Amino acid sequence: MAFVWHKWLRKSIRFPSTSRALFTLKSDPSQEIIKSPPLLSLDLPDVWTSNSKYFDPPSIRECTNECSARVIDGKLVAEKIRAGIAAEVMRMKESIGKVPGLAVILVGQRRDSKTYVRNKRIACEEAGINFVMAKFPDTCSEDEVCEALSSFNENPSVHGILVQLPLPHHLDEEKILNELRLEKDVDGFHPLNIGNLAMRGREPLFIPCTPKGCVELLLRSGVDIMGKRAVVIGRSNIVGLPTSLLLQRHHATVSTVHALTKNPEQITCEADIVVTAAGVPNLVRGNWLKPGAVVIDVGTYPLEDSTSEYGYRLIGDVCYEEAVAVASAITPVPGGVGPMTIAMLLVNTLDSAKRAFNFS
Amino acid sequence: MAFVWHKWLRKSIRFPSTSRALFTLKSDPSQEIIKSPPLLSLDLPDVWTSNSKYFDPPSIRECTNECSARVIDGKLVAEKIRAGIAAEVMRMKESIGKVPGLAVILVGQRRDSKTYVRNKRIACEEAGINFVMAKFPDTCSEDEVCEALSSFNENPSVHGILVQLPLPHHLDEEKILNELRLEKDVDGFHPLNIGNLAMRGREPLFIPCTPKGCVELLLRSGVDIMGKRAVVIGRSNIVGLPTSLLLQRHHATVSTVHALTKNPEQITCEADIVVTAAGVPNLVRGNWLKPGAVVIDVGTYPLEDSTSEYGYRLIGDVCYEEAVAVASAITPVPGGVGPMTIAMLLVNTLDSAKRAFNFS
Repeated sequence: MAFVWHKWLRKSIRFPSTSRALFTLKSDPSQEIIKSPPLLSLDLPDVWTSNSKYFDPPSIRECTNECSARVIDGKLVAEKIRAGIAAEVMRMKESIGKVPGLAVILVGQRRDSKTYVRNKRIACEEAGINFVMAKFPDTCSEDEVCEALSSFNENPSVHGILVQLPLPHHLDEEKILNELRLEKDVDGFHPLNIGNLAMRGREPLFIPCTPKGCVELLLRSGVDIMGKRAVVIGRSNIVGLPTSLLLQRHHATVSTVHALTKNPEQITCEADIVVTAAGVPNLVRGNWLKPGAVVIDVGTYPLEDSTSEYGYRLIGDVCYEEAVAVASAITPVPGGVGPMTIAMLLVNTLDSAKRAFNFS
Repeated sequence: MAFVWHKWLRKSIRFPSTSRALFTLKSDPSQEIIKSPPLLSLDLPDVWTSNSKYFDPPSIRECTNECSARVIDGKLVAEKIRAGIAAEVMRMKESIGKVPGLAVILVGQRRDSKTYVRNKRIACEEAGINFVMAKFPDTCSEDEVCEALSSFNENPSVHGILVQLPLPHHLDEEKILNELRLEKDVDGFHPLNIGNLAMRGREPLFIPCTPKGCVELLLRSGVDIMGKRAVVIGRSNIVGLPTSLLLQRHHATVSTVHALTKNPEQITCEADIVVTAAGVPNLVRGNWLKPGAVVIDVGTYPLEDSTSEYGYRLIGDVCYEEAVAVASAITPVPGGVGPMTIAMLLVNTLDSAKRAFNFS
């Protein structure tokens, strides 16, 4: 039980409109004409039911002898990609005297947010990408954040803008993100980008970094996505949803499993490719997997660990020790998808700068 | 074989960029950094493989004795909804002296397009919705169409605009549709609408009419969508994709089956809800269905029939005679989803007018 990530508790203040109580509201007379409710009223928090079987992982040493899966080394792949980006940035600088620029807006003192931003800064600096940051205290106003955003929007040396999420509760995340210029939305979270990702015949300006990193790992692992059964566990706007859409653009047959799915293990064990982004440690047990499946674990849950350097270590959604004995290939946590997300952020920033400078 | 709808043949001229040949292009040097290809290069036409088992339907009389499924009468439901809309339009007229207006742009002489437009006009007139049309010959220019669109965009008595598709090949469909004002996009096909449909916490201005009609039929048939396994067959931008997204907003566990899915019958027969929009007659046989499944058939294939009034009759994707013996409820073709699509178009137009007049 201790491991359950109560998203509902974390989000209940920021998404008051997702309450079940709204089902009974009848504010719109057109509801008398059709039965279909407004979609916002349907939004329920994804509370994965606590189930003791998820939270009773085997000892980390238990099944090392059976291990068969190839470990997909995201760190190594990401390093290669970052080296390629550094070379491309250098070529740009030598050709036109310009480099890409990434701007980050950081509000508050969250330890995890500060860590993520620091990692992005280091990655940018190593690749030769200009990094600028606007930092605000927890108590800042929406206007202050929007003003910084507007200034980055107008700045021609900034090609990508990130607003580090989550924002403090008093700030309207959607309103702030709507201010972000589409051509600089290197996170790819704008609904127009998501729509263009979903629709055949269209192409988004940016593919969200984590889904793009997952697919890149699959492609580099020699996985032929077309025609494969893929299950995406989780349907968040930033990982699960765009991953499902992207895998479908690659012609996988995609099923999306979420907290309200009955018997998620039944559908998951039919998949050739499993991408899991639920944020529930050890949710995916060995018996959830089809032998030979490829498993991409996006989950990162900080587990307190006094023996670890920072006082915690990250664990994924997948019960790694069990899965490694069943899967044909698997990403570790940490060192799998995480480094790829940052590498893809750099790719998106580079692409954005190339577009801005008409440089190819 | 005669029944195969060769979408590839129909679309190959209009979507030259979807050729497989593009897989070999390397126009973007960033492709050397990452392996992920541009999404447009992935777009393949959905050619459902011809399989004799799809095209060998049983005699229409064969299994009438076993029939068990409840027939979902879309025509009756649509009539009720249209009556409700007419009453609402009347209330609007009496309260503020205004009525909703729908504008349609029709290019060319396609018989099916003219039939669809005529049906929409009749439905509008019956509901008291003002209907205007701009008709162009096959040979018209893009500028002429855009000019008409622009005039409808500016016209405050027009609340919904439809461009009847498909357009002649020489017109750029995407460019023309991009001109359409979002607040009047009652078809809901704009990528921003699709993005907002996909993303939790957001709501599109309009839900595409056919998916909305399918869900309305499910709700009115007493089907509890939440937690159910749903399979959507087909992934077109106008039906399959938005239907998958909408069912997911209703918390179904959705799998999308398409022409590149291997063994589509295996995944389909796990579904509690099957929505099929492939355009391949008799694709879904009785043995594709789980006993008790609810089947919504969006397919409409014109089969030549000299005994029929118009020289053809419509048949769906589902082998009705077989399915009716397995399913618990099923929509017929015609008389199922078709009438609902038009009813939902009227709902969207009414909603748009209410928004414009701030009338509730």
